[in-house]
Amino acid sequence: MPTSAVSRLSGQARRVEPFHVMRLLARAGELEALGRSIVHMEVGEPDFPTPGPILEAGQRALADGRTRYTSAGGLPALRRAIAGYYADRYDTPVGSERILVTPGASGALQLVFLALLDPGDRVLIADPSYPCYRQVLQLMGIEPIAVPVGPDTDYQLTAARAEAAWAEGVRAIVVASPSNPTGASTAFDVLSELHALCRDRGAALVVDEIYQGLTYDVQDRTALSLGSTDLYVINSFSKYFGMTGWRLGWLAGPEDAVEVMERMAQNLFIAANTPAQHAALAAFDSATIAVLETRRLEFQRRRDRLLPALRDLGFSIPVEPTGAFYLYARLPEGLKLDSMTFTSRMLEEAGVALTPGNDFGRHDAARHVRFAYTREIEELDEGVRRIRDWLAGI
Amino acid sequence: MPTSAVSRLSGQARRVEPFHVMRLLARAGELEALGRSIVHMEVGEPDFPTPGPILEAGQRALADGRTRYTSAGGLPALRRAIAGYYADRYDTPVGSERILVTPGASGALQLVFLALLDPGDRVLIADPSYPCYRQVLQLMGIEPIAVPVGPDTDYQLTAARAEAAWAEGVRAIVVASPSNPTGASTAFDVLSELHALCRDRGAALVVDEIYQGLTYDVQDRTALSLGSTDLYVINSFSKYFGMTGWRLGWLAGPEDAVEVMERMAQNLFIAANTPAQHAALAAFDSATIAVLETRRLEFQRRRDRLLPALRDLGFSIPVEPTGAFYLYARLPEGLKLDSMTFTSRMLEEAGVALTPGNDFGRHDAARHVRFAYTREIEELDEGVRRIRDWLAGI
Repeated sequence: MPTSAVSRLSGQARRVEPFHVMRLLARAGELEALGRSIVHMEVGEPDFPTPGPILEAGQRALADGRTRYTSAGGLPALRRAIAGYYADRYDTPVGSERILVTPGASGALQLVFLALLDPGDRVLIADPSYPCYRQVLQLMGIEPIAVPVGPDTDYQLTAARAEAAWAEGVRAIVVASPSNPTGASTAFDVLSELHALCRDRGAALVVDEIYQGLTYDVQDRTALSLGSTDLYVINSFSKYFGMTGWRLGWLAGPEDAVEVMERMAQNLFIAANTPAQHAALAAFDSATIAVLETRRLEFQRRRDRLLPALRDLGFSIPVEPTGAFYLYARLPEGLKLDSMTFTSRMLEEAGVALTPGNDFGRHDAARHVRFAYTREIEELDEGVRRIRDWLAGI
Repeated sequence: MPTSAVSRLSGQARRVEPFHVMRLLARAGELEALGRSIVHMEVGEPDFPTPGPILEAGQRALADGRTRYTSAGGLPALRRAIAGYYADRYDTPVGSERILVTPGASGALQLVFLALLDPGDRVLIADPSYPCYRQVLQLMGIEPIAVPVGPDTDYQLTAARAEAAWAEGVRAIVVASPSNPTGASTAFDVLSELHALCRDRGAALVVDEIYQGLTYDVQDRTALSLGSTDLYVINSFSKYFGMTGWRLGWLAGPEDAVEVMERMAQNLFIAANTPAQHAALAAFDSATIAVLETRRLEFQRRRDRLLPALRDLGFSIPVEPTGAFYLYARLPEGLKLDSMTFTSRMLEEAGVALTPGNDFGRHDAARHVRFAYTREIEELDEGVRRIRDWLAGI
């Protein structure tokens, strides 16, 4: 019998949990291969293609042979364009030397975590939150402390909650706004209090703004207007700009820290993908923004359709989500199933793919599922119909 | 006075050293902006553009809108193509489920290090070697043990050297073949002995084959023919395939370990750049390989031109390098300068950019410089002329 290679892997590698949704996705694929129709409400990726002007800029870059390494911090023109976007759209001037272009928000997260934290340090994160925070932190030997959040604080991590959860060795708080999976945006005064708490305690505030731009009925802001001290903002071209597979993101931080992080990026990544960087130069063009704003309104229409429909079915969504493209819903009261069983049965028996709450943490996770509205309204309607019929039949 | 953000960064972040060559590159840029002519012999990137068939495949992918996330392990077709390349070119059958597509060899290195090593573990690496090994390991809280290598072992890390340097907590050996900066290839029996040593000690052998294909006068092999136990191979489309800025690489390892690493990749990267993956499907076409083989012969011609010219100038290159595009040369005996001073003066006074040995480790680094032959023969000749004149003048 061969030695299991897994038994030789590092402890931290063996502790990485698979996303439950990946298993469901694989099973959905099997069912579809057998001819079953599946409604996909599990996908965290916009259904819209990359906007035309960005695609065309990418094609031009390839035609011009722009395929060499860029500097680790990214094309100077792209750093300036991102800085200009903050100034123009968010009325927040940010020097381009405070911007670092990264391989996706994933690369930015890695850089920020490694720059701020040594093995053994601790970080406060919300529960529920994006699963990669805790997994990447754990891979780096850093301990995430999950702070339960729910409807009582609009699903936000507040300064009071953070203070209550504070422990020896906490060196950062990570906040996502808008948030995956809840779609909640952190109110600006709450962010400001969290920032003050961090500065008071010698910690850093990390704000993940990957869903920035995808907000509905609320002012779209950036945490960067809080200043530059002990503040790190992560962003990406993936969601609002529709560039998921291009793997391009950025971070903004204090200038001298960004200089160190650029040195780290040289070692960790060399640089982000070059054609993607040239393509992204077209992301801020008015023609592109016009396309993106039309899409934003379409997402809003979907939210406004799906939210009341799910409430009608008995799902509890007490706070109206104001961003991203997710609804985090409590299972109907009478339903005596946990979310793992519910999502499995939904897939097998109703042909609807959802993400169980367990992927996002532990706090009340067994009673929650995430709906993504990354499909057309007709498909969302069909999903609702299937869930309604299934609930009526059990 | 504002608080320095750097003082709040993690210890490991503050310990990341800048590459000396980056300072020289910046200075070379300044000099060029002033109208000075600089001969570039410092660049670790092929001067050839990405081959036409790969560029065209990339453009087709964009035209077809292939810009969504792929699965974390990469496009199944690309994993199969890489597996097929091992079978066809290296006569080494490797199942495609043992291949993981990564964001460059950088991504593969990160994954392998995190998968094999916990903070506090130790790793044997050669000195001199690619600087990112030690920097990335240190960022992860892992201790690299640098083992001096020189002409007496053909610049190879041997089992005897590794055994002598072994210490408590060593869990892996990293070998590069062909190697940056020495251009040395590790003889197959030496690799096999290192592998046996690792297996004996419960450690893993990591072989970085990023310069595979760029070998001259020696058989081009892969460590994968040693088997699959405790063996991890890293590779890239950057060097032989001419795709540096696309940031696309891969790793091969034991099947069950690769499954865990795919899970890690989901968290760390989500996936590699999608258009790049589609483009790379054309990398193994016979039309592409024909282009690449012509380039390989051109690199060989450059080596054969530069090597004797440098020896004539008094540089000592005792072992003929058989791969990559580097010559690692000891400064002429009579020259009473260290390599940092030498490379600075070369740039300022002779207009030749080189990389000081200090970027690659400590072992005799102050007496060594790295020449890259990533420019046309005429430029290499001009560089040699400038160095000769400078040496004659001091």
